[in-house]
Formats: sequence, C-alpha cells, structure tokens
Amino acid sequence: MQDILTFDDIRAAAARIAPHVRRTPVLRCPELEAALGGELHFKCENFQEMGAFKLRGATNAVLSLSDGALKQGVATHSSGNHGTALALAAKRRGVHACVVMPDNASAYKKRAVAEYGAEIIYCTPTQAGREAALAAYVAKTGASVVHPYNDVAVMAGQGTAALELHAQAPGLDMVLAPLGGGGLLSGTAVATHGLDPKVRVIGVEPLGADDAWRSLQAGHIAPVAHPDTVADGLRATIGPLTFAVLQDQADVVVRVEEADIVDAMRYIWERMKILIEPSSAVPVAALRRGLVDVRGHRAGIILSGGNVDLDHLPWSGK
Amino acid sequence: MQDILTFDDIRAAAARIAPHVRRTPVLRCPELEAALGGELHFKCENFQEMGAFKLRGATNAVLSLSDGALKQGVATHSSGNHGTALALAAKRRGVHACVVMPDNASAYKKRAVAEYGAEIIYCTPTQAGREAALAAYVAKTGASVVHPYNDVAVMAGQGTAALELHAQAPGLDMVLAPLGGGGLLSGTAVATHGLDPKVRVIGVEPLGADDAWRSLQAGHIAPVAHPDTVADGLRATIGPLTFAVLQDQADVVVRVEEADIVDAMRYIWERMKILIEPSSAVPVAALRRGLVDVRGHRAGIILSGGNVDLDHLPWSGK
Repeated sequence: MQDILTFDDIRAAAARIAPHVRRTPVLRCPELEAALGGELHFKCENFQEMGAFKLRGATNAVLSLSDGALKQGVATHSSGNHGTALALAAKRRGVHACVVMPDNASAYKKRAVAEYGAEIIYCTPTQAGREAALAAYVAKTGASVVHPYNDVAVMAGQGTAALELHAQAPGLDMVLAPLGGGGLLSGTAVATHGLDPKVRVIGVEPLGADDAWRSLQAGHIAPVAHPDTVADGLRATIGPLTFAVLQDQADVVVRVEEADIVDAMRYIWERMKILIEPSSAVPVAALRRGLVDVRGHRAGIILSGGNVDLDHLPWSGK
Repeated sequence: MQDILTFDDIRAAAARIAPHVRRTPVLRCPELEAALGGELHFKCENFQEMGAFKLRGATNAVLSLSDGALKQGVATHSSGNHGTALALAAKRRGVHACVVMPDNASAYKKRAVAEYGAEIIYCTPTQAGREAALAAYVAKTGASVVHPYNDVAVMAGQGTAALELHAQAPGLDMVLAPLGGGGLLSGTAVATHGLDPKVRVIGVEPLGADDAWRSLQAGHIAPVAHPDTVADGLRATIGPLTFAVLQDQADVVVRVEEADIVDAMRYIWERMKILIEPSSAVPVAALRRGLVDVRGHRAGIILSGGNVDLDHLPWSGK
C-alpha cells in the first residue's frame, strides 16, 4: 500500500511554507516539570501568526494549487481557526477566499475571518447546511475546496510544527498533540516517526468528542453524534485520510474530562503566562492527570493555538 | 557628588543573582511594529519566576545582606509583587520573611505570598497602618527591611533586566519602562546609560498616579494624595533615592490614560498571546497613543510582570 502521507511530503511542505509562517519558540514550565518529574518542551503554536498551527496546513495547501486553480479562488467551511488560516494564506497569495460559517458563529470568530479579507457566507448551523452552502458556492465559482484536515497537503503542513519541535528540542522520547479531525496528529506522527520510529506519538482527545478513540478501537470511523466539549477546535469527526494515517502511526490515544481541560488551561495561563485555547490544554490535562507518565522522560507537547474570546473565558461562567 | 547607583552596582548584581533568576526571552510583535513603523523588543519579565521583575531586586537585596543580619530574617510591606518576590528570595536562602499586607488585600495576592512560605501580618489598609505594623515587627525581631524600591540593592537588581535586554537586542536607541516607585526605571536608566549614554530612557506613568512626573517638574517629591489607576503596581510614591537617580538619568516621562492602559493590555494578550499585568501595559499604551514616536527606531520595552487575577480582568466589569 502506498503511504497516504510521507515524511518527504512534510519536509517539502516545510521548505514551501518557511517564508510564510513563524518558527515558533519552544518554552519550558519549571513548576510542572518539578511536579511531574520529567522534561516538558512546549511548541508554542499559539504564537503562530493568526494564533494557531492551522496556518501551516492552509499555507501548504494554497501554495500547492496551480495558478489556474487559484484563479477561481479557494473555499472551505469552518467556524474556527482553519477559516482564518485559509483567509490569511489566500490573502498572501493574492487569491480570493470564501469561508462558509454557521450564522450563529460568535462575533469573535466572524471578526477574525473578516479581518483577513475573506468572503463569508452564512449557513444554517448544521453539517448539512454547511456542506450545501459550500457545494453551491463551488458549483457557481469553481473554487478549490481546502478541507480543514482530510487533505494531504493540509496534513503535511501541520506536520511541520513537529519537525521544528524535534530540531529545537532534540532527543524527545514522546510527543503529545491534541486530536480532533486528526490533521495535526497525523502530521505530527509521520514527522516524528520519520525522524525516529521509537519516539511515541500520543493523541489526546476530550471524552465528550472521542470519535477518534472510538474509531481506532472499532477499526472503522465511528462518529460521535453530538460532540460536546469546551475544546471547540476538537469537535470535528476524524476523516478517512487522517484515520488511515493514525491507524498506522499513532502509538496511543488517551481521553480527558472537561473539568481537567479547563483546569489545565488556567494552569498554563497562570504558570507560563501565555494564552492557550482550550484545545491546547487537552494534552496538558492528560499529563497533569497522570494519564501519560513522563517521569524521567523528555516530552514534547504541541500547544496548538491561542485564540480565545477574552470576553468569554471558560472559568468565568456565562 | 557620589553616584547613588552605579553601572558597576548593576553589573555586580547581575553576577550575584544570575543563578537565581531566569534570563527571560525578548519577543517581538509584528502587528504592532507594522502599525508603528519601528522595531519593538519586548523584555518579558512576565516570564520571570513568580511572574515579575521584582524577583531581581529582592534577590539582590537578600544576597547582599550579611549572614548575621539574615539570621533575624527580612521584612517588608507590600500588597503586590515585591512581597511575593521577597518571600521567594528569602525561601531560597533559607531565611525567614515577613510581609505586612493590608487586611483587604485580595485572596489572589495573599495566596501568592503564602505560597512561598512567608509570614503574613495583616494591617489596616493605610500607609500609616502598614508602617506601624512593619516597625513593630522589626522592633520585636530585628529583621532587615527590604524596601520595594527605595533601596540601592533593590534598584541595582531591577537594572539587570535592562542589562539583559541590551545584550539580547543590541543597538536599541530607546528603552521604555513603567514608572511607579522608580526602582525599575532608575535601574534601567543607569544600566542603559552605562552601556551608551545616547540611548533614550523613557518612563511611562498612569495619569492617575503621576507623582514622578509632577516631582520631576517641581524639582522635589510631590506625592499624589489618592493615586487611582488600574496599574496597581504603579500606585507607589517615588522615593528619595529613586527620585535623585531619575532627576539625573531619566530622559523623559510621559503619562497615559486609564482606558488606554486597559486597551493596551488586551491588545498584547490578543496579539502576542502572553499575559501581562496592567502595569506592563503602560509603556505599550504610550506607544499606541503616539506619545513616543518609534518610527524608524529600535525600541526596547520592559514588560514588567504578568500577575493577574483571572477571575477579575479589567475589561470584564466588576
């Protein structure tokens, strides 16, 4: 079987996107290291331009399209960071972008997409409503759809964060990343195992949106009917491409509870003085709960993003 | 006249405290640089252990005391970062610390001091109440008082942040720092002018606590009767030692309004994804308001701390 995503894809993506994305820093957290007895190297994609790793995949996808295709523009449906990332990546290339968003998306999210000049089409807030609106737009315009995760160019782009992490913190023996649609984790796994197959790649998922864990257990994609988690970046259902890569490459998937996600997010804010969004806190929750033992180990953790509506923090009630 | 604080004092402090404080990173903010047309190098003392530059001065003061003096312990009055810093510096040295705090201090502030094992004495929340409680404690115990800013060892310690900044970002032509009691700014000025007298040192003060600006205009210390600002670290009145140094060494002091401080704080959170406290936002407010022109310049800004009660953010009302 030919590999869906290869280490060479990720290296090529890294070279392609290097001029357009930030090489984000890797930070430590001495207090948490002392508490857990291991080294923790946090790859700070919250410092990425537009505030999340998603710019990597969107940029690689846009740069991988032909000039002919780009003339018709790019489009996606997203109520989160991927929409913002695609808007920025397209703007950089001088290409028109359209983002289909549910009409009940928060003002915060609408503003982020609009800020980079994308066209926004509002749809009814259902999966069917999103897909219909996107299909209608594509039929009319011929725009190329850039899926948030079930796309090899996107997966390859997301893997470049791990590639940088291993260069910045050599000798890691495990890497943890949040797991939603599986784009970040599949890229992370292929990048990591391409460098050293012995390094463990651990996906962490909210219990309220544990479709990837269920799917890997079942051996087929098993969606969760009503995903419910504060980690809004992780509500998506794993896709056929990401699922196939993770079946092959993910060493383990662990699941965390909602209260632990919020506690972990606040802990990182208070101790590291950096803003992370709930999705980024998911692997930290697993570490603090002892679901992954780092004693005597060197662990890398991908902090996936830092886009938070400061008027609605998860610990301040409604 | 003999100098109160010399460049050699600061270099000696840097060597003394190096094993005990973090060499904090210097970060950039591309969005703000694009908006203002100059380079901005942010010295991130919010990443300092215990969350503020105050650990530098407190550590230098504790390490400068004799073993005999240390046997009686150290003491201070503070409702803010200096109390926490002294608690930690003393704990490291195995010395007893006492912090006099107003009995209406927030639970957040009490917890921070208690976390490092200091004794807390509560007093009535007035300047007279604080001083009486501290004097009584010192009379009883013989503890050495470490003043939050009007102390040469403290001022020398605070100046080490600027020393690092100039090494990390060579060729700055101006440095901005918040101005409260004057410890940070006096250390910053002496460190900066010791390296290059041509670099401008700019203090920024809230209009609601502009005693330093008034004092420098008047030529004598002119306290503000009821300082009122969200920047709780800057409510103190400039001291005789810091005033004397700033008369000689500060190039200019500018003042900013309350709403601009809160806006600047939120801007840095959202754009740089780092937590800064209101005091740190004061120089940023001056830049964003155009009170200091950085066009074509390389400016250093000291982000003094990141200790914020996440249950009471300044933009979320009461």
